Amino acid sequence: MPETFTPFTDAHADALRAIVGAEQVSTRQADLDLHNRDQSRHPMGNAQAVVWPLTAQHVADVLRYCNTHHIPVTPWGVGTSLEANPLARFGGVSLAFERMNRILEVHADDFQVTVEPGIGHKDLNAQLARYGLFFPPDPGANATVGGMLANNAAGIRTVKYGASKDNVLKMQVALADGRLISVGSRSIKQSSGYDLLHLFVGSEGTLGVITQATLKLVPVPSLMSAVIASFPSVQAAIEAVVAVRGSGLDPAALEFIDAKQSALLRDHTGVDLEESPTLLMEFHAVLPAALEYGLEQVRQICTELGATRLKTTTDNAERAKLWSVRHHAYETLVRLHPGYTFLIDDVAVPISQYPALIGYVEQVVEQHGVRAYMKGHAGDGNIHCEFPYKDAEELKRAEYINDLIVTKAIELGGTATGEHGVGTGKAHHMPHEHGEALEVMRALKATLDPHGILNPGKIFPR
Amino acid sequence: MPETFTPFTDAHADALRAIVGAEQVSTRQADLDLHNRDQSRHPMGNAQAVVWPLTAQHVADVLRYCNTHHIPVTPWGVGTSLEANPLARFGGVSLAFERMNRILEVHADDFQVTVEPGIGHKDLNAQLARYGLFFPPDPGANATVGGMLANNAAGIRTVKYGASKDNVLKMQVALADGRLISVGSRSIKQSSGYDLLHLFVGSEGTLGVITQATLKLVPVPSLMSAVIASFPSVQAAIEAVVAVRGSGLDPAALEFIDAKQSALLRDHTGVDLEESPTLLMEFHAVLPAALEYGLEQVRQICTELGATRLKTTTDNAERAKLWSVRHHAYETLVRLHPGYTFLIDDVAVPISQYPALIGYVEQVVEQHGVRAYMKGHAGDGNIHCEFPYKDAEELKRAEYINDLIVTKAIELGGTATGEHGVGTGKAHHMPHEHGEALEVMRALKATLDPHGILNPGKIFPR
Repeated sequence: MPETFTPFTDAHADALRAIVGAEQVSTRQADLDLHNRDQSRHPMGNAQAVVWPLTAQHVADVLRYCNTHHIPVTPWGVGTSLEANPLARFGGVSLAFERMNRILEVHADDFQVTVEPGIGHKDLNAQLARYGLFFPPDPGANATVGGMLANNAAGIRTVKYGASKDNVLKMQVALADGRLISVGSRSIKQSSGYDLLHLFVGSEGTLGVITQATLKLVPVPSLMSAVIASFPSVQAAIEAVVAVRGSGLDPAALEFIDAKQSALLRDHTGVDLEESPTLLMEFHAVLPAALEYGLEQVRQICTELGATRLKTTTDNAERAKLWSVRHHAYETLVRLHPGYTFLIDDVAVPISQYPALIGYVEQVVEQHGVRAYMKGHAGDGNIHCEFPYKDAEELKRAEYINDLIVTKAIELGGTATGEHGVGTGKAHHMPHEHGEALEVMRALKATLDPHGILNPGKIFPR
Repeated sequence: MPETFTPFTDAHADALRAIVGAEQVSTRQADLDLHNRDQSRHPMGNAQAVVWPLTAQHVADVLRYCNTHHIPVTPWGVGTSLEANPLARFGGVSLAFERMNRILEVHADDFQVTVEPGIGHKDLNAQLARYGLFFPPDPGANATVGGMLANNAAGIRTVKYGASKDNVLKMQVALADGRLISVGSRSIKQSSGYDLLHLFVGSEGTLGVITQATLKLVPVPSLMSAVIASFPSVQAAIEAVVAVRGSGLDPAALEFIDAKQSALLRDHTGVDLEESPTLLMEFHAVLPAALEYGLEQVRQICTELGATRLKTTTDNAERAKLWSVRHHAYETLVRLHPGYTFLIDDVAVPISQYPALIGYVEQVVEQHGVRAYMKGHAGDGNIHCEFPYKDAEELKRAEYINDLIVTKAIELGGTATGEHGVGTGKAHHMPHEHGEALEVMRALKATLDPHGILNPGKIFPR
């Protein structure tokens, strides 16, 4: 892949101004600083200009220009990523989507909405509330829809509703050479030609840039319940996960918090938890009796597996309080570690391998004498390990352990990243995870982006 | 795409025998005849040898040999396709999967199974029954899993469980040059690299050949109900579809049968139907009260929309009887048209466009004075039009009308094929449906199959 580019000059900035308008290009340091950061531990980016397209045609024209002149283009949503996915590594343009953030059309009868990529999913859902519909993927932060699709973001509702890739039907994509293509269909079913939609989803802006997306929506659930259960062992907790999923109860969230973090949250949030592996669950229903029945089933499953504490509720306020523990778990961690930054890992394995993975993390963390907390989307086999560090040496050690965990996850039949994407942080694990398939990915990249201008330095190891 | 190939000779057959064993290659006419047919109206294929691989390595080695010698290879499952998808058009090898039909591993705790591509989905589900799990996509015929994945087959349960593409996690794929790669992951979540899994799914054997697949399974539902409702108009029926989907009742099937076919089924099956647009529905639940509640909701929706006849049941025998009408609808049609063959169309549109599509079909059919019946997966916006014909002239007229309907479906924001795939029958509609994206598909094809040996003549128009 070519990684030599034309040095970016004022003449390039002026040419871009001629394409998108003077107001839509900045080389001011403050703008560059903002767009050269995400929420990760990784070094800042080095974009030399920020370009805010207003239309899909702007995106296409900017790409065509940069492709002709061999200038790197790195798409940027709102900077909530954790693996440097939207940070320029070879200079050039940060293509920022703050000004393409409109809902273009609500197709209420089709349970679909067509949006520009710069809209935040929380802002989108606030506007969709009046239709009784919502876009389910929720990575926590108010990530943009474009960023979520480009990185296949997921979150706590994925066990029921799927990841971003499962909730998009159609996209408009700008190619490196400036062509605008349409991929997928507003028809729910399509067996027509190659699935280019899912090729661009999760490609982190390295194959093309999403300029429009039609999303699947689902009805807002009318009734919800919540469960918190503590277990004597990780194995017992995971047996409960398997039993709940096998029962046909279709949980809407199935989250795991390790013993250490549970105790810490108990001590600092006042929520009734134990120093034990803990599961948080949520169920949706249309009938109160069904909700009660489901909870009774869950109580039985958890009790049979030796749950030492079990709390269930169908009350909305109480449910919100239980879940606030999960939603604020990371903030709580940060608050309790003043002066520390966190390395957040993200690996996923087949559920049957979850106990083995967690056992390995506990072992390796103890062996190396580092602090680490675990929580994760157990229903999906996805776990996040959080390593606090305060200096370069601690970071290096955390990264070393992080690499061990990723390697183990891949060996257990899992993946280097369940929902954060590859960016630069996981690129060196790609040969291990994908083997020869990585060469196929490289071949597709070379076909669609022969000059390598699209988000260079990401996904593929150097 | 190159479409000139090396003439297939006895020497090639002998070389293939050396790769897979003498018993696994045949040039006998009876074997060729069997593998040069599917269930479609399209001309027979012209494969010159049938090769039955026993292992993934056999597949890879056959492909490497044929790639080196520029011999076409057309994968064949069991020949249930309707668009000539598995029929050789340029001679060469029919790569037949009858002898790679094993379950390799049941991952019961993960709700997954790993299979060879030649297993029929009905045979698979029979063997999975003991685990209380099943693979939901059901195209009707006992298609092979490999064929279903290659064509992204769907069926009546797709409204709840998704199409084939939504129910596969990982595949092993043999490339044209003989490399074997692994795509996807047994981890439910994966945000790692390009989604090659979905690039190969639905590519109809034109990019690579599936040699192994790990499928998602779901728990067998414990309780089911069925509903049949007749409506005064197609519009009212589709309003019911939208209302049922919007209610959060999550139907497991939501089928439409047009007035003409409903009357015909009433007269010849004894099931209580009217000559009106008819919906058949199925719901799954874990609690009897939830099933009853759901039916009450559906009754209200249908009654408010003017349903003229409404029958609901939670009794398994009665449900089976109701659904037998749908399952045997095509056979009933065939039986009532002795001497006729059927052209079966397959288009899909956004649900909001379903009345417009059906109105158009009714109009164009009347205008041209042909017979046609409609049924479809209304919950997905998918419709099948069935045109009986008895000679070449009637077939030609049916094909003409078929083309009009496909064109209309695409204009309504839909697709040329919801679940049957492109094969040769829909290839000429690809430029209209995909525009410039078709050129991207061609570029990917050229990258992965530079000599064009993989199922040549399919998907892309000549």
